[in-house]
Amino acid sequence: MTYCVAACLDAGMVFLADSRTNAGVDQVSTFRKLRVFERPGDRMLALMTSGNLAISQAIVALLAQRGTEDPRSLWNAVSMQDAAQCVGDAVRTVHARDSQALKEQGIDFNVSLILGGQIGQAPCQLFQVYAAGNFIATSPESPYLQIGESKYGKPIVDRVLHTQISLDEAAKCLLISMDSTLRSNISVGTPLDLLVYERDTLRVTRFACLDENSQYLAMIHSTWGERLRQVFSEIPDPRWITPETPAAQDGAPLRFAQLHQPVRISAGGADAAHAAPTAHQILAQGATRSQAH
Amino acid sequence: MTYCVAACLDAGMVFLADSRTNAGVDQVSTFRKLRVFERPGDRMLALMTSGNLAISQAIVALLAQRGTEDPRSLWNAVSMQDAAQCVGDAVRTVHARDSQALKEQGIDFNVSLILGGQIGQAPCQLFQVYAAGNFIATSPESPYLQIGESKYGKPIVDRVLHTQISLDEAAKCLLISMDSTLRSNISVGTPLDLLVYERDTLRVTRFACLDENSQYLAMIHSTWGERLRQVFSEIPDPRWITPETPAAQDGAPLRFAQLHQPVRISAGGADAAHAAPTAHQILAQGATRSQAH
Repeated sequence: MTYCVAACLDAGMVFLADSRTNAGVDQVSTFRKLRVFERPGDRMLALMTSGNLAISQAIVALLAQRGTEDPRSLWNAVSMQDAAQCVGDAVRTVHARDSQALKEQGIDFNVSLILGGQIGQAPCQLFQVYAAGNFIATSPESPYLQIGESKYGKPIVDRVLHTQISLDEAAKCLLISMDSTLRSNISVGTPLDLLVYERDTLRVTRFACLDENSQYLAMIHSTWGERLRQVFSEIPDPRWITPETPAAQDGAPLRFAQLHQPVRISAGGADAAHAAPTAHQILAQGATRSQAH
Repeated sequence: MTYCVAACLDAGMVFLADSRTNAGVDQVSTFRKLRVFERPGDRMLALMTSGNLAISQAIVALLAQRGTEDPRSLWNAVSMQDAAQCVGDAVRTVHARDSQALKEQGIDFNVSLILGGQIGQAPCQLFQVYAAGNFIATSPESPYLQIGESKYGKPIVDRVLHTQISLDEAAKCLLISMDSTLRSNISVGTPLDLLVYERDTLRVTRFACLDENSQYLAMIHSTWGERLRQVFSEIPDPRWITPETPAAQDGAPLRFAQLHQPVRISAGGADAAHAAPTAHQILAQGATRSQAH
């Protein structure tokens, strides 16, 4: 399903994408997900995609077809906001052309894109474009975006990323986020495209394609894991205190107090249990309310 | 959406469940997800649920109704495999009764359960029961199960859990897994039910209900985060090597070699781009194959 993540920082921007695509476990391929629209000295835009591959490729192809003579093209966008609108319009064009046929096959118009970059003197901006063609932008409080298999790699980014960190630290953070995802989900795989954009350079200065031969990626993989296990072993284990044991003086014991009891189901059977609610009862009680999960 | 996780280890078993339930962001409640069926000296079974609350409550109520006089009851299961079958049968009973009405409301029969424990002299066993009423068991190679919002907390469990660790280390591991999930997803919340089952005791000896006042949980939350940030800062940042810079002697530099180039979209427009594939073309090429993602 892919995993792409990008951050917009004071010092610039970082983009990281995997390249695994699958149409089931017996059809796994490699397709690059990060594309660059660069006019050195004028603009640097990076686009990453996830979701249905045919849809995302169609959108990128449409954007690629629109050259410098086309007013709707990314080459003529006057601002990043305008550029995001261009991408959104391309999404809608593909939707208008293809969604009905997909629906007839029972397939959702499933695509998400990340667009980021800088045009001229304006600040860097980072957007997520939805399947409906509209989009959101990052903010200093929420300076990163993820698409695809985002959950495995979210905790580390939530813990360490903020707008003041350096570009290299951000790259390291996103690589660790990707490593956690690679380890836990087989629909995400190398090679990885890493683009580190230095603010106001308006060109690609730092790009790397990382595969299983990449020393840095291997170092992240082994070192992060080892250090995590080391930190884990150094954190105090829980200490169970029974009513008979005096409270320990150190650490933070887990108290097994008598007032802590699990919810116990008694062996009494029907007498002890409340009547099982049925769907009809629930619907009668609140048919217009959502079901709780 | 809840998060429940359990592990089956050489020393016994650990179960951890949150208790947040929601029917949308404006209707958030607390419902305990872990229930214990305990007959000291004979059996200790723990059941955790996720998914549609009405469905999971109906299943638990049905199991609770079946007392010691009922041959289908958990109190009469002769083995953990038998007990898993009892739970599966209860799922199917509720499905037979409620799924049609739910379907008419456009609601899926969405429920997942974890059942674990020990009966008599037999080994501990841990199962995940599906909405279809069938189930899988853990193995020494895959000694844990998760239901609900499982992805955020999976990387740490993948990295540190194995069957030989102590029960307290396993509890610590699952609490860290839960902490990562709590931090990144608001549909998971305290209080948490933690049950640590010591093999062959056939009773509940260690149980804690952890909320925002729990010192241990607070310690996990702050210490794990701090130590992770510390480990993060100690891991070498990537070092970009240009063709002009000699390779560094230390660490594992990220090489910015000339042969590493991002996929660039040129400004040439239609001449440079391939024709955008349409859904019709794709369907003609391989109508029976799944769409790639």
